Amino acid sequence: MHAAKSAALVLRDDNEGIATLTLNRPAARNALSMAMMAALIEALDAVDADPSVKVVVIAAEGPAFCAGHDLKEMRGLGLDAEKLGAVFARCSQLMLRMQTIRQPLIARVHAMATAAGCQIVATADLAIAAEGVRFATPGVNIGLFCSTPMVALTRNIGRKQAMEMLLTGETIDAAAAERFGLINRAVPAAELDGAVLALARRIASKSPLTLAIGKEAFYRQAEKPVEDAYAYASAVMTRNMLARDAQEGIGAFIEKREAVWTGC
Amino acid sequence: MHAAKSAALVLRDDNEGIATLTLNRPAARNALSMAMMAALIEALDAVDADPSVKVVVIAAEGPAFCAGHDLKEMRGLGLDAEKLGAVFARCSQLMLRMQTIRQPLIARVHAMATAAGCQIVATADLAIAAEGVRFATPGVNIGLFCSTPMVALTRNIGRKQAMEMLLTGETIDAAAAERFGLINRAVPAAELDGAVLALARRIASKSPLTLAIGKEAFYRQAEKPVEDAYAYASAVMTRNMLARDAQEGIGAFIEKREAVWTGC
Amino acid sequence: MHAAKSAALVLRDDNEGIATLTLNRPAARNALSMAMMAALIEALDAVDADPSVKVVVIAAEGPAFCAGHDLKEMRGLGLDAEKLGAVFARCSQLMLRMQTIRQPLIARVHAMATAAGCQIVATADLAIAAEGVRFATPGVNIGLFCSTPMVALTRNIGRKQAMEMLLTGETIDAAAAERFGLINRAVPAAELDGAVLALARRIASKSPLTLAIGKEAFYRQAEKPVEDAYAYASAVMTRNMLARDAQEGIGAFIEKREAVWTGC
Repeated sequence: MHAAKSAALVLRDDNEGIATLTLNRPAARNALSMAMMAALIEALDAVDADPSVKVVVIAAEGPAFCAGHDLKEMRGLGLDAEKLGAVFARCSQLMLRMQTIRQPLIARVHAMATAAGCQIVATADLAIAAEGVRFATPGVNIGLFCSTPMVALTRNIGRKQAMEMLLTGETIDAAAAERFGLINRAVPAAELDGAVLALARRIASKSPLTLAIGKEAFYRQAEKPVEDAYAYASAVMTRNMLARDAQEGIGAFIEKREAVWTGC
Repeated sequence: MHAAKSAALVLRDDNEGIATLTLNRPAARNALSMAMMAALIEALDAVDADPSVKVVVIAAEGPAFCAGHDLKEMRGLGLDAEKLGAVFARCSQLMLRMQTIRQPLIARVHAMATAAGCQIVATADLAIAAEGVRFATPGVNIGLFCSTPMVALTRNIGRKQAMEMLLTGETIDAAAAERFGLINRAVPAAELDGAVLALARRIASKSPLTLAIGKEAFYRQAEKPVEDAYAYASAVMTRNMLARDAQEGIGAFIEKREAVWTGC
Repeated sequence: MHAAKSAALVLRDDNEGIATLTLNRPAARNALSMAMMAALIEALDAVDADPSVKVVVIAAEGPAFCAGHDLKEMRGLGLDAEKLGAVFARCSQLMLRMQTIRQPLIARVHAMATAAGCQIVATADLAIAAEGVRFATPGVNIGLFCSTPMVALTRNIGRKQAMEMLLTGETIDAAAAERFGLINRAVPAAELDGAVLALARRIASKSPLTLAIGKEAFYRQAEKPVEDAYAYASAVMTRNMLARDAQEGIGAFIEKREAVWTGC
């Protein structure tokens, strides 16, 4: 029952080792209801545990990529601090899960991404958007500052630019998002699928083990003082060197042949 | 007496909930003497405590926005480490106070901002400059490295760009300052007042409580590891949701009407 | 004997207080063998201890600036975790040493910089590249994620851009490197020597003591929470003010004459 409901809210499509998770609540602009967040976490858990998946794409159906929290549902919780806290806790859990799955995660942003929707884009390892897309953290307009989206936003873009988005609630276009560092690039809408697929395929051609080691190390080292970061990263590289895929990759490189990954 | 002196060094003008604090020592290029810093801290304390103020602008009179410390005054202190230390302590107190006042703070930069003057720009939540303006951290030219301005500068712009400014002491223009992230944007000098006013008005139209919650959270979360940042920001959003202004804002949004803020 | 070997791997040329260290293993694309890293650390120790050196340039001979680790040498270590760990430990020691020498360090990048070679560029205080140059962290292509280069890369450029370089292993050109913040600027190849020399001379004209104080403080304050950073930087500036070079520099500035540095 729960699985069926989740399946409806988040669609999954696998192709060439690329799992595309599609937010499928278009009429509600893919608002992150408690059920939607649970479905997305469940889908992330499933891809993380699935050795056939090498890259994950988060996409969406309908006129918006994601409009953030489900305000009607939140309003229905009244002034119950515990229930409200559970909403933000689940949202934070979702964002952290995006960064702890083994696979690189690409956001495919075809339309407006706001509030926690903008946070999904900021949290993704990589993001490609269609040229017309706009981004915002507009919580300030309804009296509810985008404090949790801010955690992801400020770890992607500069302070002045982040402050302006947060304090004014106004949208920025895809060109500004690229310039600020919120997305990797904007492409014409007609080329969005091709650009996401090309990027996903390039990454899927690498050793899944190497990608998993690197992704985990990326976020861990980022929070350490530089000397600790080097001690940690040196240990990671030593461990990585001992893996079969590194031995194979280095051998193939020296012998000028194609490497064959086994993921171990 | 002290108040009168402060009033002379820093002018205050209130309009539409926007308090403009104007550095008013034009002949000294608004150098930050001990008295000037005291006057500015006093002015910040006053606006912070004034519920009618929704946005603060720091502006300046004369040929420079601010030339940094008052070198003649500092030279007069001789080699007294305690007195010199008091100068830098007060300066740091001033910069931190800019970030702890409840209201968003915009720097209106009409002319050259150097050393601690550049630091004011970097420290402001937002900054708009006239197109001809130049910025520098030129302490290295006089044997006194801009170490405290560096604290603010490196939290705004990339390392390579910050290092070049600090090691060479050379100026960058407003276009580079915008590209690097030191300011939000450069506008033609004739449009500076209009651009600052438009930005200040947009922000002043929001709930002051929401702005205060968001500004405080911005700087606090920035220094936490991501998991702690999420736990903190989730608690902030829950508290924010319980406030009357959020209930009003969300209600107004759902009912498609204008929100009426009470600031609580 | 060891010194002779080192001299062969890293050439040193001193001119006008500018020490240029040239990676001199062109046939191996200046790969960072254990001996090459030892030679470079030794050269850095020597310039750090040499009061005649005011600025350091790292340059390279041959078709590549630096291709990263010496894969053949590393492969020869087999699956010996201790020996492999010693390679990454020495590499981290090299990078940290670049940031702890007293003098500002400029990377002169005339050709491709990849993996730990790209890390040298990211780690340098400043970097100028020829326009045709490309940069990459391609370890993922051989199953060995560029985890230690990542430590330097992510402290220079935004997360999305860093992730794309690391996960795809693809090159970026010098224009992108400048836009992202990995280098200070790209210049036509014919102007590279002139641009590096001009930048080195500008910095060499400052007080060596002031540069040393500032460089050390740059990296230390960057890792502190802002209040601690200000307390630290205020103490640094007070100490700096008491130095003869600051007294001389401020005096010269006020008296509108040229300062004469003594470096103390």
